Amino acid sequence: MSSETNNNATAVSAAEGVEEDESKNPSSTGTTISKKAAKKEQMKLEKKKRQEEAAAASAAAALASAELESDPLSGNYGDIPIHELQSKEVTQRKWNEIGSLDENLKDKEVLIRGRVQTIRPVSKTIAFLVLRQKGFTVQCVVTAAPELVSKQMVKYASSLNKESIVDVYGIVSKPNEPIKAATQQVEVQVSRLYCINRAIEKLPINFEDAIRSEAEIEAAALENKQLARVNRDTRLDYRVLDIRTPAKQGIFRIQCQVENIFRNFLISKGFVGIHTPKLIAGSSEGGSAVFKLDYKGQPACLAQSPQLHKQIAICGDFNRVFEVGHVFRAEDSYTHRHLCEFIGLDVEMEINEHYSEVMKIVDELFVAIFDGLNENCKKELEAVGKQFPFEPLKYLRETLVLTFKEGVQMLQEAGVEIGFEDDLNTESEKKLGQLVLEKYGTEFYILHRYPLKVRPFYTMSCYDDPTYSNSFDVFIRGEEIISGAQRIHDPEFLKTRAEACGIDVQTISTYIDSFRYGAPPHGGFGVGLERVVMLFCALQNIRNSSLFPRDPQRLAP
Amino acid sequence: MSSETNNNATAVSAAEGVEEDESKNPSSTGTTISKKAAKKEQMKLEKKKRQEEAAAASAAAALASAELESDPLSGNYGDIPIHELQSKEVTQRKWNEIGSLDENLKDKEVLIRGRVQTIRPVSKTIAFLVLRQKGFTVQCVVTAAPELVSKQMVKYASSLNKESIVDVYGIVSKPNEPIKAATQQVEVQVSRLYCINRAIEKLPINFEDAIRSEAEIEAAALENKQLARVNRDTRLDYRVLDIRTPAKQGIFRIQCQVENIFRNFLISKGFVGIHTPKLIAGSSEGGSAVFKLDYKGQPACLAQSPQLHKQIAICGDFNRVFEVGHVFRAEDSYTHRHLCEFIGLDVEMEINEHYSEVMKIVDELFVAIFDGLNENCKKELEAVGKQFPFEPLKYLRETLVLTFKEGVQMLQEAGVEIGFEDDLNTESEKKLGQLVLEKYGTEFYILHRYPLKVRPFYTMSCYDDPTYSNSFDVFIRGEEIISGAQRIHDPEFLKTRAEACGIDVQTISTYIDSFRYGAPPHGGFGVGLERVVMLFCALQNIRNSSLFPRDPQRLAP
Repeated sequence: MSSETNNNATAVSAAEGVEEDESKNPSSTGTTISKKAAKKEQMKLEKKKRQEEAAAASAAAALASAELESDPLSGNYGDIPIHELQSKEVTQRKWNEIGSLDENLKDKEVLIRGRVQTIRPVSKTIAFLVLRQKGFTVQCVVTAAPELVSKQMVKYASSLNKESIVDVYGIVSKPNEPIKAATQQVEVQVSRLYCINRAIEKLPINFEDAIRSEAEIEAAALENKQLARVNRDTRLDYRVLDIRTPAKQGIFRIQCQVENIFRNFLISKGFVGIHTPKLIAGSSEGGSAVFKLDYKGQPACLAQSPQLHKQIAICGDFNRVFEVGHVFRAEDSYTHRHLCEFIGLDVEMEINEHYSEVMKIVDELFVAIFDGLNENCKKELEAVGKQFPFEPLKYLRETLVLTFKEGVQMLQEAGVEIGFEDDLNTESEKKLGQLVLEKYGTEFYILHRYPLKVRPFYTMSCYDDPTYSNSFDVFIRGEEIISGAQRIHDPEFLKTRAEACGIDVQTISTYIDSFRYGAPPHGGFGVGLERVVMLFCALQNIRNSSLFPRDPQRLAP
Repeated sequence: MSSETNNNATAVSAAEGVEEDESKNPSSTGTTISKKAAKKEQMKLEKKKRQEEAAAASAAAALASAELESDPLSGNYGDIPIHELQSKEVTQRKWNEIGSLDENLKDKEVLIRGRVQTIRPVSKTIAFLVLRQKGFTVQCVVTAAPELVSKQMVKYASSLNKESIVDVYGIVSKPNEPIKAATQQVEVQVSRLYCINRAIEKLPINFEDAIRSEAEIEAAALENKQLARVNRDTRLDYRVLDIRTPAKQGIFRIQCQVENIFRNFLISKGFVGIHTPKLIAGSSEGGSAVFKLDYKGQPACLAQSPQLHKQIAICGDFNRVFEVGHVFRAEDSYTHRHLCEFIGLDVEMEINEHYSEVMKIVDELFVAIFDGLNENCKKELEAVGKQFPFEPLKYLRETLVLTFKEGVQMLQEAGVEIGFEDDLNTESEKKLGQLVLEKYGTEFYILHRYPLKVRPFYTMSCYDDPTYSNSFDVFIRGEEIISGAQRIHDPEFLKTRAEACGIDVQTISTYIDSFRYGAPPHGGFGVGLERVVMLFCALQNIRNSSLFPRDPQRLAP
């Protein structure tokens, strides 16, 4: 078969896809939000449509079953009733992985379970199915043959709904021409075909639309062809379909890998993984940006960071700790990089004499993460790049460390108006990222000695200049991704600094008291897991790297 | 020095410890809660005391500093001012780990940083300090010697507060007799001594009281000696001190190890680690036991389990997933095994034909965890056992699997009144644990095919008997620790079951709809991290294995 035919089929359903999306959200770009009312109406319509479809499907099934009765080979295909799937028995059957199908299995019988990605009926006697499993695909051929495969079976195959789960028994064969429609270079000549679970006929997102890159859509537009663009809200509403795409599969497998390397690296350096509470008494220092709740009659809030508790762990002799856990921010930020809930990668450690010890950990840890991803996630990175093309991250073997002053100076020299005690805004961070890349050839660097006034009250000020602090930020591709610092471990100094920052010391007495029982000098940092993945893959939007993102306008699914 | 002297010293401060605890909470046992009002008053008193102490300390410091001026060797000791600890400079100094001090370093100069665990002034010319770091301790000797160590320095050493952080420079020596007061079998002959951070003089918990086992207290009581018992609430109020004890250090390092083995084992079996949202729209199916909050004007609640989202991940083609994350339960349970917030270890996976595939993962995973702890955490388990003695867990190389019916039959034969469709209560679970241990020699086993009516609506019923379900619980030492099952993956069947359970299908339409786009048969299980640690070490109370526990009466620190 030619991949051309396939492409045409895609174009057809793609056009439908456009219609659907546009009607749903007429003026939408990727991030525009459709109005609630329109959405509700749409949901109602969809539900009605779904009910009608279900009725139609069951009518069709009844008709089909009538036809089947007359087929002596009807036992070779059909929908498996749910009753048969209730752990009926343990058989000796072995399922072959689609990814493992190759020439070595030629002429052997295999049993595979997969999702029907495409269905192409060629005639009454032949139909092609492409099955997908774990990112691998294989072409299955249903050919009518006397006493083996009936025409009804070909018809049955053609009538399956895309994205249904099927079991296929068949013989592996090797076609003469390379197969473009699937990842595996062998075909399966189907002898039996059973549907394990049928997807509804009209899916809210078509797989072939969901995997399309912007570039493809734009290239087609230049030739006056309109290809469907599935907008972000549709993707997030039907996340269960969206995450089946190779790019999303890749993204979340990369995310898991980031966490693994983070944990393993730190454990190898003597860190202990801990878990700190997310339910906190009172309302956290952060003020308005916290989610408040009632805890058995007490006012409580969700932790905005594990700051206090990871510091208690250090004062409690754990020496070096990390946490991977949820962080909650009730901020009203609706940007490409903010979420109301994300996974924080937090680190806290004793320091002997200088916060550069913390920066050294950041350096080694992130080089380990980047190296690890490049080495172990080649397939995933390729899958992501196919839909969201990006240049591999440029980073040095030893991370570049600049002072804040040096950064500001670079900006000033490039004509940016900024003072030595101003904080960097998003724009100047981007600009500095460009300048650093040009001068040092890296998109990953550390900026330290920030002005004290732009950091939290518990940040240690510099030994030689109290205007600055023993703190740092870390940037990937011009965006801040990590904040860290030496903390004030002396309770009296901490009190003084809190007062200087206008904080009512009474409200943070628990925090301050934690340092009264002998506290070692220490420091640490925090980073968002989703941001690491987003920026490593240049994904543009953090909703692409959060499995079920939460922002001020989204709380589902 | 003899350890006898040390023990006497312990007894003295222990007696003080008792007084303090008793006055704080006169009628208290380990779990009794002192009244709020009394606590507040106590807090006030403590604060006042603390202020007075601070004043006294600074007066003493002033006096001391006057004395020091006359000491030409005053540069060899003293409190390091905070200013000097603000990352002053990066020197070439190397700190030796206390745990690495041994005979190989004899006659060498070392620099160590540690916490002052005990102080024993012997005379005006000699004082012993025991320093602690990462669970290791070393005895340091300050001996007055002309032109090296002044009498003022000996006095300074004697005046340090316990639990303060100090830097010690000294020469390693090997005494003739074995050292009982410390883990390291060498001493450090101190030449310089600097206090990095001073603990307050009167600590709310004495270290020597905090490490004492029940057995020691009871043995002493038989001889009419009263040793301090630090009750649980005091420990939790001052968790920063409590977690410094070897037992607690061990517990939380074991906890980290459980998580590591869990992750590594599952990753080796093709699972992907995911993170699901904890902020959920509406109020979860669980009803009253959820924490509710306002999410930007929408009613929301905290996730009671990642059930829906881990199932979406399976329907989203991740094939096998796990999550390590917070779980929130607003239940009013004040028992030894319930928390309002804990770490869930959740697993969900496609199954080919039978839920025994899930039980097989449970079997292999937990044997791997138990083996891993026994192999890699010897030191930690020993430290835990010293304070909380326990028998090593008995488990088989291949986990025992019994049906629920078999379990009930064993109970019936032992005289317990229970029917074949009743749920097990805590008492019968304990009893069954005993019976299983006697008959099969294991404290870890799986019980499956529970009555359908005692399981959630989404549990798949048995193929051969709809009274029972494809579900299982797993027990350690007679307590339920894991719940798992095959899930219903068919939307229509799911709807039928929800209705049969009296659930308004409208409220769970998102859940049901997730299965409309092709859903593979699947199953999974969930387990609480804190419970695994508690039951493996037979800790009696889950508050011992949660770093900062949350129960209906505790929301701090």
